[in-house]
Amino acid sequence: MPPPRLRGHNAQGDVNDSVDRRTALSRLSAIAAAAAWPMSFLETSASVSEPSVAPLSSGKRLRKIATEEAFSIPEVAAAVRDVVRQGGKNLDLKLLKLIYDAPPAIAANNQQALGGSRDALATTLLPRLLDLDTTRLAEMDASGVDMHVLSLTMPGVQMFAPDRAVEFARLSNDRLRDAVRRHPTRFAGLASFAPQDARAATKEMERAINSLELNGFLVNSHTDNAYLDEMRFWPILEAAEALGAPLYIHPRAPSDGMAAPFSDYRMEGSIWGYGVEAGTHAVRLMLSGVLDRFPRLRIVLGHMGEAVPFWLWRLDYMAAPGSRAALKNQLKPSEYLRRNFAITTSGLEDPAVLRLCIDKAGVDNVMWAIDYPYQPTAPAVAFLESAPLSDSERELVAHRNAQRIFRIAES
Amino acid sequence: MPPPRLRGHNAQGDVNDSVDRRTALSRLSAIAAAAAWPMSFLETSASVSEPSVAPLSSGKRLRKIATEEAFSIPEVAAAVRDVVRQGGKNLDLKLLKLIYDAPPAIAANNQQALGGSRDALATTLLPRLLDLDTTRLAEMDASGVDMHVLSLTMPGVQMFAPDRAVEFARLSNDRLRDAVRRHPTRFAGLASFAPQDARAATKEMERAINSLELNGFLVNSHTDNAYLDEMRFWPILEAAEALGAPLYIHPRAPSDGMAAPFSDYRMEGSIWGYGVEAGTHAVRLMLSGVLDRFPRLRIVLGHMGEAVPFWLWRLDYMAAPGSRAALKNQLKPSEYLRRNFAITTSGLEDPAVLRLCIDKAGVDNVMWAIDYPYQPTAPAVAFLESAPLSDSERELVAHRNAQRIFRIAES
Repeated sequence: MPPPRLRGHNAQGDVNDSVDRRTALSRLSAIAAAAAWPMSFLETSASVSEPSVAPLSSGKRLRKIATEEAFSIPEVAAAVRDVVRQGGKNLDLKLLKLIYDAPPAIAANNQQALGGSRDALATTLLPRLLDLDTTRLAEMDASGVDMHVLSLTMPGVQMFAPDRAVEFARLSNDRLRDAVRRHPTRFAGLASFAPQDARAATKEMERAINSLELNGFLVNSHTDNAYLDEMRFWPILEAAEALGAPLYIHPRAPSDGMAAPFSDYRMEGSIWGYGVEAGTHAVRLMLSGVLDRFPRLRIVLGHMGEAVPFWLWRLDYMAAPGSRAALKNQLKPSEYLRRNFAITTSGLEDPAVLRLCIDKAGVDNVMWAIDYPYQPTAPAVAFLESAPLSDSERELVAHRNAQRIFRIAES
Repeated sequence: MPPPRLRGHNAQGDVNDSVDRRTALSRLSAIAAAAAWPMSFLETSASVSEPSVAPLSSGKRLRKIATEEAFSIPEVAAAVRDVVRQGGKNLDLKLLKLIYDAPPAIAANNQQALGGSRDALATTLLPRLLDLDTTRLAEMDASGVDMHVLSLTMPGVQMFAPDRAVEFARLSNDRLRDAVRRHPTRFAGLASFAPQDARAATKEMERAINSLELNGFLVNSHTDNAYLDEMRFWPILEAAEALGAPLYIHPRAPSDGMAAPFSDYRMEGSIWGYGVEAGTHAVRLMLSGVLDRFPRLRIVLGHMGEAVPFWLWRLDYMAAPGSRAALKNQLKPSEYLRRNFAITTSGLEDPAVLRLCIDKAGVDNVMWAIDYPYQPTAPAVAFLESAPLSDSERELVAHRNAQRIFRIAES
C-alpha cells in the first residue's frame, strides 16, 4: 500500500497538480532539513518545478515516466563498500569510495566546505539510493514525476565474485519486485543479472520477467573488462531477445584496457569516460554482427545515445557492411540504431541534442530519464516540459515510448 | 609556377566554374585510368560536382578552402614504412600497413576483389598523399575547390625516434613551404613539429611561422601515449599562443593505455577510435587548466569537434569549475569551446550535426574540410554547397573563418 504521502498524487492526470507540488515541496524541505542536506543538493525549487507554460497545448497533464533511476539495497551497498576497501585500479572505485565509504566526518566536512559540489553531493547519495518509500517519492511528487523505472545502481553486481553476484542479483530483483508491488503506480523495474555467469544470468532473466514481472534488464557496460559482443555473453543477448525485454546498457568507468587517459581530472566518470565506455560498447555490438544474430534484441542507451547519434553519418560511411575485412555487420549502424536501440535523455538536458536524437533514432525510440539521485529531478522535469517538441513528440518522450518499450500499463 | 593544368582555375571566383569542372573531370578520369584506379575511389562524378542550386543566393561563386587536407613526402613515407615493418602493438599500424606496406600484388587484388571498400581504398592513397602538383589539383578543380590547407598526414613525425622526428618535421615543413610557393592560390600549410623534443619543437614552430610563413600547426593527438596537457609539452602550447598560430589536433588511433576495446572490428580508426582519442585529448586540455595558463591558445578540432559539442551540456554540468577536487579548469567547458577552439567538418557531412556545432561553438568557429585523400572531394563539396545555411554562414564556413583563423589572404 502506498504510504500516506502519496495521497496527493493523481495517477489519472486529470487535475492540476500545482498544489500537490507545493505541498510535496514543503515535505521535501523537512526531509532535507532532518538529514542536514542543503536543499541545493536536491535542486528542487518551486520556481523550477512549476512549469511556466503548460507542457501540452491541450492543458492536459503530462504523464512523466523516468527511465534510468537508480536504487540500491543495504546488502549490495555493504558489499560494494567491501569492494571499495579491497581497492584496486578500477576507475569506478573513485566515485564508489565517495558514495559508499567516505568517512562520516569527511563527508560532513565535504558538504560544508564544498557547498553544492559534485564531490560533496556524492557523499549524500546513499540514503537516497536506499530509499524506496519516503524521500524518493517526496522528490517525485515535488516535481510531478509519476513513475521511476528503477534499476540497481552502478556497478550493479558486476564487481562481485560470480557466486556472490548471482546471489545479489536475485536478492535485489526480489526487493525491486517488492517495491513495485508496494507502489505499483510509481515504480517499474529493470532487473539485474550477473554476466560473470551467463548460464545463471539467463535463469535469473527468465525469472525476472516471467515470475517477478519486471520490465527489462540493466547492465553496467563491461564486466571484468569484457563486452557483450563476446561469444560467452551471447546466451544473455539471446535470453533478452527471447523474453522480448529490453536491455539497458548503463555506463560505468572505462574498462581497465582503456582507462589510462581517463585517470586524471575525474574524467573516468560522468564528465567524459562514462559516455566513451557505453558508446564504445554500443558500437561493438553494432559492428560485431551480434545484432544480425539477435535481430529483435532491444538495447537502451542513456545520455542521448552516448554520442552514437552524433557520429552516425561517419559510422555509416566508415562502417558500411563489407567495407573493411574486420567488420561483421550486415546492416548500416543507422539501421541498427532504429531497429535495435532506444535512447534516453538522462543527464544531458540539451534541446538541440534531443532534436538530433529524435532525427537519428526516430521519435518512437527516445525516452525521458532523470538519473535519480545523481541528477536533480526538477531541472530534468523542466527540460521535459519546456523542450521544443510537439505535443505528440512530448507525450512519446515523456511516457508513451516507455509504456511500449518497457510494457508499463497506461495510467 | 603552377603547371599548365591550373590555367582553367579562377582564383578570383568571378566566372561560372562549370566548364572548368567539366574539363577538370575529364583530366581526372585520364589520371585515374593511367593509375588503374576505379573512378569510384575518387567519387567525383559530374552529377555530384555540379551543384543543383547555387550555393549563394547572389549567384556569386563560393570560395572553398578545405582545412584538413593530408600530404606526405617520400622520405617520411619510407620512414613510416620502416615503423610498420618494425611492428608493435600500436593500433595505428593497422591502417599504416595498408597505406605504406601493402604488397603490390595484394594491393592490386584488394582493389579488384574489394571494389570500393575502405580497405582497398587505403592501398591507393600513397600516390595521392605524395602528389602536390597533378592529381590533387585535378581533383580540386573537378569539384571547384580553391585551396587545400595542407598538413603532414597521420601519424606525422610522432612515431619516429626524437632526432629523426625533429629532422623530418623540418624537412616536411620545407617541402610544404615549397608547395605553397609553387601554388600560392591553391595551398596553405600547417607545420609539423616533434613533440618528442619540446625544445626543438618550439624552435621549429617559430621557424615555420616566421621564416616559412606557414599558417599554423598540426599534431596527431598523443605522442608516445602522452597528451599535451602534460607539463613537458607546455612550451609547445606557449609557442603556439605566442606565435598567434592555431594548433590542429588531428586524430590518431587511441593511445596504448586505452587501446583494448578498440582492437576489434577496426574500431581503432575513423569508425570510432579516432573521435574518442581526439575528443579525449580536447577534454583533457579543458579540464587540466592549461587553457587558463594559455588563454589565447587556439585549438582546432576536426570531425565536427570530436563529439565535444554533443556532450557540452553534460561537460558544463559535471565539470563546472570547482565542482570536483581533481578539476583544474577555471572556466566552463563551453566557455573554452568558444574562446579556445575551432571546429572543422572533416569526415562528418551531416547537416544536423553541422547545425549543432554552429550552435555550440559559434558560426565564427566552424570551418569546412574534406580530409583529402581519405574522404572523396565531390560529396564534401556537395555537403558544403547544399547544407541548410544562410549565405553569410556558408561564406564563413567555406572560407571566411579559415582566412581569419589561418591568416590566409582573401582571394
